[in-house]
Amino acid sequence: MAAGSTIGTILKVTTWGESHGKAIGAVVDGCPAGIALSEDDIQAMLDRRRPGQSRYTTQRSEEDRVGILSGVFEGKTTGTPVSMIIFNKDQRSKDYSQIASCYRPGHADYTFDRKFGFRDYRGGGRASARETAGRVAAGAVAEKILSELGITVTAYTRSIGPVSVDADRFDLSEAANNRLWMPDPVAAKEAERFLEEKMAACDSAGGVVECVISGLPAGLGEPVFDKLDAELAKAILSIGAVKGFEIGDGFAAARSCGSANNDAFAVRDGRTVKTTNHSGGVLGGISDGSDVVFRAAFKPTPSIAQAQRTVTRDGEETELVIHGRHDPVVVPRAVVVVEAMAALVAADLLLVSMTSRIDRIRGFFGRQKENGCEDRDRK
Amino acid sequence: MAAGSTIGTILKVTTWGESHGKAIGAVVDGCPAGIALSEDDIQAMLDRRRPGQSRYTTQRSEEDRVGILSGVFEGKTTGTPVSMIIFNKDQRSKDYSQIASCYRPGHADYTFDRKFGFRDYRGGGRASARETAGRVAAGAVAEKILSELGITVTAYTRSIGPVSVDADRFDLSEAANNRLWMPDPVAAKEAERFLEEKMAACDSAGGVVECVISGLPAGLGEPVFDKLDAELAKAILSIGAVKGFEIGDGFAAARSCGSANNDAFAVRDGRTVKTTNHSGGVLGGISDGSDVVFRAAFKPTPSIAQAQRTVTRDGEETELVIHGRHDPVVVPRAVVVVEAMAALVAADLLLVSMTSRIDRIRGFFGRQKENGCEDRDRK
Amino acid sequence: MAAGSTIGTILKVTTWGESHGKAIGAVVDGCPAGIALSEDDIQAMLDRRRPGQSRYTTQRSEEDRVGILSGVFEGKTTGTPVSMIIFNKDQRSKDYSQIASCYRPGHADYTFDRKFGFRDYRGGGRASARETAGRVAAGAVAEKILSELGITVTAYTRSIGPVSVDADRFDLSEAANNRLWMPDPVAAKEAERFLEEKMAACDSAGGVVECVISGLPAGLGEPVFDKLDAELAKAILSIGAVKGFEIGDGFAAARSCGSANNDAFAVRDGRTVKTTNHSGGVLGGISDGSDVVFRAAFKPTPSIAQAQRTVTRDGEETELVIHGRHDPVVVPRAVVVVEAMAALVAADLLLVSMTSRIDRIRGFFGRQKENGCEDRDRK
Amino acid sequence: MAAGSTIGTILKVTTWGESHGKAIGAVVDGCPAGIALSEDDIQAMLDRRRPGQSRYTTQRSEEDRVGILSGVFEGKTTGTPVSMIIFNKDQRSKDYSQIASCYRPGHADYTFDRKFGFRDYRGGGRASARETAGRVAAGAVAEKILSELGITVTAYTRSIGPVSVDADRFDLSEAANNRLWMPDPVAAKEAERFLEEKMAACDSAGGVVECVISGLPAGLGEPVFDKLDAELAKAILSIGAVKGFEIGDGFAAARSCGSANNDAFAVRDGRTVKTTNHSGGVLGGISDGSDVVFRAAFKPTPSIAQAQRTVTRDGEETELVIHGRHDPVVVPRAVVVVEAMAALVAADLLLVSMTSRIDRIRGFFGRQKENGCEDRDRK
Repeated sequence: MAAGSTIGTILKVTTWGESHGKAIGAVVDGCPAGIALSEDDIQAMLDRRRPGQSRYTTQRSEEDRVGILSGVFEGKTTGTPVSMIIFNKDQRSKDYSQIASCYRPGHADYTFDRKFGFRDYRGGGRASARETAGRVAAGAVAEKILSELGITVTAYTRSIGPVSVDADRFDLSEAANNRLWMPDPVAAKEAERFLEEKMAACDSAGGVVECVISGLPAGLGEPVFDKLDAELAKAILSIGAVKGFEIGDGFAAARSCGSANNDAFAVRDGRTVKTTNHSGGVLGGISDGSDVVFRAAFKPTPSIAQAQRTVTRDGEETELVIHGRHDPVVVPRAVVVVEAMAALVAADLLLVSMTSRIDRIRGFFGRQKENGCEDRDRK
Repeated sequence: MAAGSTIGTILKVTTWGESHGKAIGAVVDGCPAGIALSEDDIQAMLDRRRPGQSRYTTQRSEEDRVGILSGVFEGKTTGTPVSMIIFNKDQRSKDYSQIASCYRPGHADYTFDRKFGFRDYRGGGRASARETAGRVAAGAVAEKILSELGITVTAYTRSIGPVSVDADRFDLSEAANNRLWMPDPVAAKEAERFLEEKMAACDSAGGVVECVISGLPAGLGEPVFDKLDAELAKAILSIGAVKGFEIGDGFAAARSCGSANNDAFAVRDGRTVKTTNHSGGVLGGISDGSDVVFRAAFKPTPSIAQAQRTVTRDGEETELVIHGRHDPVVVPRAVVVVEAMAALVAADLLLVSMTSRIDRIRGFFGRQKENGCEDRDRK
Repeated sequence: MAAGSTIGTILKVTTWGESHGKAIGAVVDGCPAGIALSEDDIQAMLDRRRPGQSRYTTQRSEEDRVGILSGVFEGKTTGTPVSMIIFNKDQRSKDYSQIASCYRPGHADYTFDRKFGFRDYRGGGRASARETAGRVAAGAVAEKILSELGITVTAYTRSIGPVSVDADRFDLSEAANNRLWMPDPVAAKEAERFLEEKMAACDSAGGVVECVISGLPAGLGEPVFDKLDAELAKAILSIGAVKGFEIGDGFAAARSCGSANNDAFAVRDGRTVKTTNHSGGVLGGISDGSDVVFRAAFKPTPSIAQAQRTVTRDGEETELVIHGRHDPVVVPRAVVVVEAMAALVAADLLLVSMTSRIDRIRGFFGRQKENGCEDRDRK
Repeated sequence: MAAGSTIGTILKVTTWGESHGKAIGAVVDGCPAGIALSEDDIQAMLDRRRPGQSRYTTQRSEEDRVGILSGVFEGKTTGTPVSMIIFNKDQRSKDYSQIASCYRPGHADYTFDRKFGFRDYRGGGRASARETAGRVAAGAVAEKILSELGITVTAYTRSIGPVSVDADRFDLSEAANNRLWMPDPVAAKEAERFLEEKMAACDSAGGVVECVISGLPAGLGEPVFDKLDAELAKAILSIGAVKGFEIGDGFAAARSCGSANNDAFAVRDGRTVKTTNHSGGVLGGISDGSDVVFRAAFKPTPSIAQAQRTVTRDGEETELVIHGRHDPVVVPRAVVVVEAMAALVAADLLLVSMTSRIDRIRGFFGRQKENGCEDRDRK
């Protein structure tokens, strides 16, 4: 697709807005009618990416109150576009002359200038992480669709810098208990110590987010280009700061061998299941009924309080020191963004997958006739 | 997108065909008019994925002769769809009853049945690696477009199992000299020994392909969802057997720190350049003028000559032994597929990027008037 | 969409091929799996647009034998792309120097040159009516989908030049009996006489095709931009030589008044129905359960055997006399093309419409669990 | 496309909002960077569709003040989505029980209920003509793009009921002088009298809008499905109440003959031109450099103050009398909507057309290098 701010085939999301413009928002088109949806549903998910939650996230006291402007009537989606808006409250006048005139290493300042000729430099403009608020709002709508069908999406921090969650201590309920969204309290403590060191050194860290989609029926994703894992990869790499994506065993599979990497099939309770899940829930790009498990690698926050060599807009070499507070790691706030993008992809492919078999299509339209859906007005 | 066999916005590729059907092919729509294109151009690229090139690739003696059926006139593209066809020659009658009736671990047999109700089981049908021949043919067209603008795409084997190319011995010209497309003759030898072991053990291996796009102007890729790296990730994950994607430092960036991972800007010969390339040529999803460098992780070939536990189509547990010869590793033949997909993404985004600035658009239409393009028929 | 040779959202059709190239064809992606489909099904529809059927259609003795190259296995669609090909048999060497060097009035020669810089001038190249063979082949697939759900599409000639079908004599079974596809034998005779006159005068005629889609459930078409009538209008105007489209009362509605044009609702056999159908089966862009009725206006064949003033490719004024035989009217052969395009739009929107309501979606996925579709392998 | 509230390939517009919701709006993605754009630019176009302008348009005293929320910085477009919002001010509490419980003839009440299961019945919800405000706001952005390249779009009323503009009296400057946007003061007076009669009879009228796009370069529009006229037809039929579309001579061409309908080519001032314009500026779906001229047929306003037979949501026959004031004809307010949709199509295809020829693409990228666009930062 061109232009770039729209994603999805049936469930189509368009986001808009700059970091320091009047507002940011998202429009979700193609959401099925009849789903209970309130601003609170969306706010709950947005609050998870709110800054100012801990020492490791920025202190900007945004409230990020979302408003639903359309597409919901009497508490339910109407099938028409759900437009959501978040006004930018914290736009206090700041001196942006430095960021306006020179290119921050690791940021999109330079590439925006090359692509568009100039840019809204205030707080990163459209390239700011604030753009992800629109994604999260849209993802909240997608999660509502999925929950109608018993599907859940859960993301958490897998590692920060060198500190990884320990498989033996893994406890998902712990993730919400610590400020780093790590499902392992010991690792969380260790990661906090690591971040303190980085902050003291005016430096920053990266990390890995893991996400699990459970309850997805087999059969989602299209063969060839629009594979489930391919769509997930695009959605995840589209999040700023993501540098890698892997599904199932991922890069480790490249070092494995067929006899270890293949998942055997077996029958359990009368159903065909895989006895292991090296594939991460996808075979040939189509969901296989197991949990879909994938990981996203985030680079270290590029804004650091050290002097860096760079170039001005006018082509002069210079030294840049970025002031102000920045998250030493983006991972904790990115967890919910990963979850939102995964929900959007899953919900969209779920809707698309309804059309793959004529027997089911026949049943779909036939059933409407039989049970009166079609003849709802018959007396 | 739905249906799944079409990719691209302006340069739109549709592939079709099953492993053992009459033919396979690709239609490339949106190719600019006036590019010299012959069947030989496409054949040269197709020959690189041909089976039977070494002990490590299948012996099926396909010729894979491509024919151009439309879109080229007097040796040049006309701007209308370029339709390419490869007839399947080696369709000798075989016994497919085993693969028809039970699910091969690591393959898409099970998921196709769940999605579509049944499947063309001959040789894997649409899920066969043979499908990639259409991608390679389309990629050859994309490389012709790119070469008009001085852009090159080069892929090679980075590792097979535990054997990686050594940075000090890296020599791209070596890649074509060995059967594994490894740009390091020592590593290539070692990898061959490793593969012999695997074959002796009736097992298979995975590996990593690396790809470099050089000469790409800054400014390609759209902000938000259609980032250059996001589109590459989708295109690469859409290749069967790929389980991971990373750009620049990728997963290693997640363990790095900001001061090490940021690429400083400097001025060289009057141009702004990055002094390192940890980002892999992309900042904020937009090409930054450096080489675009990414890697794809391939899982081990799922077809192995060992007994494996599985389930039949009728839901009975069973043991499966796959007969016939299969590549012990897919990586060497996948190199050109990675290259093809990268070329398709780059060429498409290049065309899309022409529309980003009104000053250039004005120049584009103005220039046609000035230099007579517009008035070509003025006497 | 860009590039322009692909149409549809879920059911996606790509056509390719030039009039005098090696072959023409179509790829239909997104066709649901499990539909019985043979080459004969497609051939039957293609035969209806075959030239050489009467004095009023060209004598080119093409056979237009279609071949299915993929997407069908054991007589049923597999859910993967259905690729169809028709080889161009009648490519006898001809002198195209005239059409190569000067612009035929009413044809696309001039605009192709301006757009692409040059063109495949043989027989009109991609702009030839022969391109529609691909549409008809694809339309035959769409009609198979529709017929599974009891939906029929029927087109016929409504008028040729000044001669219109008389409402009182309307008899659809007559359409196939005369060479002009007119459902009124008296009008057909009169139209034949009119065409004889035009031919004697080295001139040509236009006409109107009418099309009826019956059995379409209410609820197809999207609110705003992708209305059912909007999608039909695009599909019909995309047929060469079409200059107008109207649905229901069309342009006559513009001269009517609200009290006459509104269709009253009533209850018949317990169902809500419209007592008239001025709307042509669409309210607010969504099918209302009545027959969808629309018309397409075709211009007179531009190739006439009279001298015409024109300009050469080099910008010299000249006089052109087009030799060879051409249909004096395109309408009879266009009837099946209109039908094909209507079937493609209806089938695509039908599939899209499955996703509009969460109660039905819940029922769709729930039913699979209940009736064992989902658990097909449960013993 | 699915979902239906997004249109365009490069210039992509999404509209949202219901008649009596909190607000309505549009997001324009893909707008080139660097175009001067203010809220006043958009307001000026919006004011042309404002209700309450005359006796013949509703008296609702909306102000329809548009706000730009994103995509503009320092007075110029940034290349990122332009989000525009219009708050609904006049939402006074009304009794909607009648429209909620029964189906207005000629409206989308019934089809929305069938498609979505229920609907936002307040003032027509998403199916209200108020939805077009978003289109007009987006069209204003498109007109800014076109004006940068010397392209203008002009629509006006061609006829109301039986009263048509007289060719001899045609004076475009008159259109803005009368309340019906008719470029003929005599016809305008006559049409006013006709409307008074209809209003006195509690009835309504339809009419025809004509639109001219001038200055469009030859070469816009894609061969096959995405022809310029096909895209225009879709865009125009997507406007509520439109029942017909014709380009150039349209339906009259179906009654003409080839010798009269073909436009001869000639050379004027060293350029190839058509000496007539029966084609309406399009040959083979591609702009030919002449004015693009098309017409849209609007049905009579369905809301009339007469008793009408209809059916309730519960399937009971009933009689309905619609209270309140409604425009006796939608045409005058629809003029600017037609213009907006034409501008959107033209601007989008203009951007797409930049990619059709490799010589121009080479020139485009080459020129950036030569004239320093590429090396803007070279000292």
